[in-house]
Amino acid sequence: MSDFTHDSFQHLFSQRILNTPRSFIREMLTVTQNSDIISFAGGLPEPSLFPVEEIAQAAQTALSEEGSRALQYSTTEGYTALRQWIVDDYERRGMHTRVDEIIITAGSQQALDLIAKAFIDPGTPVLFERPAYLGALQAFALSAPEIRETTLQPDGPELTSLERGVKGARLFYCVPEFQNPSGVYYSMPKRRAIVEILRREQTLLVEDEPYRELYYNDREALPALAALYDGPSISLGSFSKIVAPGMRLGWIRADRRLIDKLLVAKQATDLHTSSFNQIVLYNYLSSRSLNNRLAELRRCYRERRDAMSDALRTFLPQAEFTDPQGGMFHWVRLPGIDTAGIFRDVLEAGVAYVPGTSFYAHNPDTETMRLNFTNSAPDVIVDGVRRLSTAVSGMLPTSPRKKSEVLASSTQAGRASL
Amino acid sequence: MSDFTHDSFQHLFSQRILNTPRSFIREMLTVTQNSDIISFAGGLPEPSLFPVEEIAQAAQTALSEEGSRALQYSTTEGYTALRQWIVDDYERRGMHTRVDEIIITAGSQQALDLIAKAFIDPGTPVLFERPAYLGALQAFALSAPEIRETTLQPDGPELTSLERGVKGARLFYCVPEFQNPSGVYYSMPKRRAIVEILRREQTLLVEDEPYRELYYNDREALPALAALYDGPSISLGSFSKIVAPGMRLGWIRADRRLIDKLLVAKQATDLHTSSFNQIVLYNYLSSRSLNNRLAELRRCYRERRDAMSDALRTFLPQAEFTDPQGGMFHWVRLPGIDTAGIFRDVLEAGVAYVPGTSFYAHNPDTETMRLNFTNSAPDVIVDGVRRLSTAVSGMLPTSPRKKSEVLASSTQAGRASL
Repeated sequence: MSDFTHDSFQHLFSQRILNTPRSFIREMLTVTQNSDIISFAGGLPEPSLFPVEEIAQAAQTALSEEGSRALQYSTTEGYTALRQWIVDDYERRGMHTRVDEIIITAGSQQALDLIAKAFIDPGTPVLFERPAYLGALQAFALSAPEIRETTLQPDGPELTSLERGVKGARLFYCVPEFQNPSGVYYSMPKRRAIVEILRREQTLLVEDEPYRELYYNDREALPALAALYDGPSISLGSFSKIVAPGMRLGWIRADRRLIDKLLVAKQATDLHTSSFNQIVLYNYLSSRSLNNRLAELRRCYRERRDAMSDALRTFLPQAEFTDPQGGMFHWVRLPGIDTAGIFRDVLEAGVAYVPGTSFYAHNPDTETMRLNFTNSAPDVIVDGVRRLSTAVSGMLPTSPRKKSEVLASSTQAGRASL
Repeated sequence: MSDFTHDSFQHLFSQRILNTPRSFIREMLTVTQNSDIISFAGGLPEPSLFPVEEIAQAAQTALSEEGSRALQYSTTEGYTALRQWIVDDYERRGMHTRVDEIIITAGSQQALDLIAKAFIDPGTPVLFERPAYLGALQAFALSAPEIRETTLQPDGPELTSLERGVKGARLFYCVPEFQNPSGVYYSMPKRRAIVEILRREQTLLVEDEPYRELYYNDREALPALAALYDGPSISLGSFSKIVAPGMRLGWIRADRRLIDKLLVAKQATDLHTSSFNQIVLYNYLSSRSLNNRLAELRRCYRERRDAMSDALRTFLPQAEFTDPQGGMFHWVRLPGIDTAGIFRDVLEAGVAYVPGTSFYAHNPDTETMRLNFTNSAPDVIVDGVRRLSTAVSGMLPTSPRKKSEVLASSTQAGRASL
């Protein structure tokens, strides 16, 4: 393109884009395409399990049955048959839902963007988990809210910080099932307590459930917060983890009194999600192979989760970590080590991860890191943890200091920043 | 979903969503699916010309050659081969471009959203054409800018209002080729003058070119404003009009010093555009059937444009209208008629259009309307214009008053609001 007459265009940028963090994870996708590096950095599903043949078949069916309708502009809400499939899934969970309460989105990342647009003005207080999903921190940063935090404990948010944070907050964003990055699964007592606290202020609940179907231990499914809460609520879902992320398909389930404004945001953002993809996905779902696929995913990911847990115990006994019952990540603390500071060195030793600082809006716990276990075979996981151990071995305390917890205990939570 | 304990959730919404207009056109998509109604309201391409078979073939090739890569998460910038195809197209136009200056977007509507995020804070002054593309007005409204206007004349913006509007404005958004809604094609003298004016303030040029290939009269292609301008510039393109809108694929071409921030906005918005769609589209483009398709589109749309021009002259002699050399719309003024006020009556008479008020940020010209000619066969167009004529016949002046112009003359432009 043309030569520049000016040294810089810095003066052109909005304040909000300058304050929005670039995703470390997506940066790493480029670095870690180097095949010598074992990457625990991304949140990638295992590609060999993608239903490639079935999607190819579904694409043929979509184009032969729907013809040009699969390629024309469509409604902002999305393809009705796909929305009905989603409704049926909620109904099976006992959550009464109407088709006009569902909007199809470009993955659940877009759902976060639309929610920020519809509910957040600069300075609006919102409550996040601590640590929080970084994609949500990023999506919301573009709306310049005041971000508050409630500290996560192994069974869910610490309630004092939740109560304090909810006061005057517009919404509470949470991932109650196998949270990213912590792996936390909210207990039933915590769920009941949270709903009570939200009810007092009629706070908008935004419940993100991308990992719901990725559980690796037998358990009784607990009701969603949205099923317990009679105030304003939005649920987010995604096909990225259970079918394929490259389709970029997710959804919003929202109270009827909220949905019109979310639709205005969706119109203004991209008119509608690809009709082609929606029809292809619906055809795939109609083939009823999803349940078999989920069983296969759970078997594969359980083995990998176990491989990583065992390797961490074996090679990094000084590390503290959650042993998640589902999802895609281990959340690890290396006592006394600044994980961002050593990142380049560890990368040179052939392993990548996400430093924990990315997951905090304020006052990061610099000793934490997130490790993905779904995108590497068990032997690769073992090799990667061994490399990590070798790279950090000289830095860890030789005599184990008193172990804290990678997630805050109640006492620590009392000190958590708001 | 749950019963409501409150009557309304109005207090939850952001100020910016309350100030963002819902698109009249997308509302109309629902109404006009009633087959008794002839719709000139949407901006839909003719679906019988979509390359359904070729896309089906391309989907097979994509999945058999790329396999799981077509379904995995991908880079925010987009699929490199598709970006290279776009680069080659610019190079053929003499516009030097590098692959890392291209971002694939979910249609060009998303490009507008990303530009608003990267460059606009609340109150930032931006300059639009008058009348303006309503999708851009809507996308920008979410960022709450101060919208200024430069009045369109038959050969491009009126220069006094442009000069006044550019002062202190962050960017100038324009559609120089067959603009939506007006059909205006900027002349070469206007292009040169605009670039001179932008250069003085180093205003960011945002040039949207969705209709560039939809020309229906022999003409020499004029250089893009971005090719003439050595200040900061962004070009937008779309596959919606030349291949198929349901794929939701467009692109941004931006100066290297602007692109990083646009990538941050794209990451935060939806991570990346569907890798599946990008690979399918690239495979379609590689089949080299696009040029034949464009010739077919031009032949079909020329005939429809002519049918509408003739019908307007025959059945609505009192109407003023542009006779566009390309694009998808006639821009019409019915003297003395409030087109929004009569919309429901005309709809009952069996024809739909978009009242012109949708295309103005301020002080709408209420006598205007936009008529789409690409989505109806010639005989349907004639029938629709006849219905429109019958519906409004009693309202039009019987003795023709002195004709003004549907687009402002220089004198009128001097009075245009900023």
